[in-house]
Amino acid sequence: MRARAERLVALLEGRQLDCLLVTNLVNVRYLTGFTGTNGACIVSREDRVFLTDFRYVQQAKEQVPDFDRVEAGRELLGDVAARLRGRAGFDDAHMSVKAHRRLAERVGEGVELVPAGGLVERLRAVKDERELRAIRAAAEIADAAYHELRSRGLGGRTEREVALSLARFMEDRGADGVSFPAIVAAGAHGALPHAEPRGVEIPRGTLVVVDMGARVDGYCSDCTRTLATGPLDDRPLEAYEVVRRAQETALESVRAGAVCREVDGLARGMVEAGLGLTFEHGLGHGVGLEVHEEPRLARTADGSLESGNLVTVEPGVYVPGEFGIRIEDLVAVTDEGHERLTGFPKELVTLD
Amino acid sequence: MRARAERLVALLEGRQLDCLLVTNLVNVRYLTGFTGTNGACIVSREDRVFLTDFRYVQQAKEQVPDFDRVEAGRELLGDVAARLRGRAGFDDAHMSVKAHRRLAERVGEGVELVPAGGLVERLRAVKDERELRAIRAAAEIADAAYHELRSRGLGGRTEREVALSLARFMEDRGADGVSFPAIVAAGAHGALPHAEPRGVEIPRGTLVVVDMGARVDGYCSDCTRTLATGPLDDRPLEAYEVVRRAQETALESVRAGAVCREVDGLARGMVEAGLGLTFEHGLGHGVGLEVHEEPRLARTADGSLESGNLVTVEPGVYVPGEFGIRIEDLVAVTDEGHERLTGFPKELVTLD
Repeated sequence: MRARAERLVALLEGRQLDCLLVTNLVNVRYLTGFTGTNGACIVSREDRVFLTDFRYVQQAKEQVPDFDRVEAGRELLGDVAARLRGRAGFDDAHMSVKAHRRLAERVGEGVELVPAGGLVERLRAVKDERELRAIRAAAEIADAAYHELRSRGLGGRTEREVALSLARFMEDRGADGVSFPAIVAAGAHGALPHAEPRGVEIPRGTLVVVDMGARVDGYCSDCTRTLATGPLDDRPLEAYEVVRRAQETALESVRAGAVCREVDGLARGMVEAGLGLTFEHGLGHGVGLEVHEEPRLARTADGSLESGNLVTVEPGVYVPGEFGIRIEDLVAVTDEGHERLTGFPKELVTLD
Repeated sequence: MRARAERLVALLEGRQLDCLLVTNLVNVRYLTGFTGTNGACIVSREDRVFLTDFRYVQQAKEQVPDFDRVEAGRELLGDVAARLRGRAGFDDAHMSVKAHRRLAERVGEGVELVPAGGLVERLRAVKDERELRAIRAAAEIADAAYHELRSRGLGGRTEREVALSLARFMEDRGADGVSFPAIVAAGAHGALPHAEPRGVEIPRGTLVVVDMGARVDGYCSDCTRTLATGPLDDRPLEAYEVVRRAQETALESVRAGAVCREVDGLARGMVEAGLGLTFEHGLGHGVGLEVHEEPRLARTADGSLESGNLVTVEPGVYVPGEFGIRIEDLVAVTDEGHERLTGFPKELVTLD
């Protein structure tokens, strides 16, 4: 964890910042290890200071060994302001206008507050071995949940009950919880990319989109499969094969140096050519402490993949009123290619 | 739900605002009914506009009947900017510095962005009958979970397993989920006001702080009880009685017109006089779509309670290395007094 703050200091110097105030709790956790609901840290070449209120002093003692720990008032900002020096970066992507105004009123003479959001997110985009281990473990638990689903079947069950029992299965296997509320969306409901599970029975002879992940040590996994509940018409079968081939083609292109926009374009082109349809979301996104983080695989993405990135590859098609299909793997980018963390089959699986 | 936007318009006029941009998703849900993860609305005397991206268009059609619905780009801000007019309030307590800068760059001539956070929160502090019904239902489910805990006992169970099974019980009784991760903290661990449940067995002859709530239709409940797992020494027994009397005395003072700071002071004074100890948190907080909202009962609180407020009353004592005690009820404020929503006994309950 100490290495993370050191990598951050290198980024600060590139931006001529004397220190960085980190207030977003996910970033605070990444740098310090703190998992409570109120904390901030300040990182500079010389100092590593962590602030929290009385409720978390004991917890911080155990979780934050590498920082000087300060007990601050509940609002934190007053105590933070007194510790900023020189050109002080702050997280403009998360700090509210009101908090910024209060902070600006309280900093000492000669302190300049400089917008510097996204620096910790850049570090977080490249996972270390400890992070990869947690995400592998989370992905294995979600894989086991898919296998359990296959053996138990979908017949006679409601979307909501399936979502709930998948979540419980993952908890029982040692997950902290789910990485997001699972999507279980049958038939036309699957055409909503962010469908909420309903209390209605899943019919036979339809496609069901299942999108879920587990969380282990705070790290998320993310995997989507589209399952069948009996024989299907030709159209959804054909669409499934197009999405599957697009997913696998894009996946094969994933390696360090691949251009994010081009990976997206590969799958998008195949879905458009094969079905005359496109998907309005990006092909994929980074996954880590948050289920959506850097880098993005999208039409508007900049940059290339690098070794240590962890991304989803998830093309979809959504035919309003009929069905939806999405197939999603989670992969770690390596110099040679990638390591796939999600193992459940991608050939169409039909359940009872 | 239409009445809420009308109450908001009255507040806008008091602030000479021509419109209000609402971006915080909880506030958006309160005003429009939308439960997705990306949406905003603009309220003025003439217009009610709701914006979301393609993923939620169908959902919004079902959930947001009272607003004009607009499909916007994923970032929303560009489409939002084009619709603001005159003195346009924005939520400075939630909008990030970066989003505000982008918005300011895009609004038309003559538009002035005015900090106006907290207006919707003021409305939310006074519950309507529909909201009260949801919270009553949530509180009943949590009560049932306490009764289930009493009959099942704590002996041989870990804090984590108890927390998990309470959550599942509440889900099975129809809760959307929990209103926050339950606290189950035995012995000295109970002295941490925000303790995380551990995988360790709960010992006999100790106090266990259990703090939990259910969520129904998005609305939270919140209730704490401190239970015993066998005979106790005199000191924790005596402390329990002091906290219980302080809780009941403060509770009796809750009615429309009661001064928030004075209600807090009543309980605080009794705990200090009885034990020479204080609690560093406030006596209570509002509960609704969020588990912590307005109004606050605290040393630094302003204002008085009004009919329709829903607040917790939860004094505590925390003796580091020994034990913690907290007793919390959730009550709806009425002109005559209050309606208590949490029914589990407050006399010390001893479990096997």
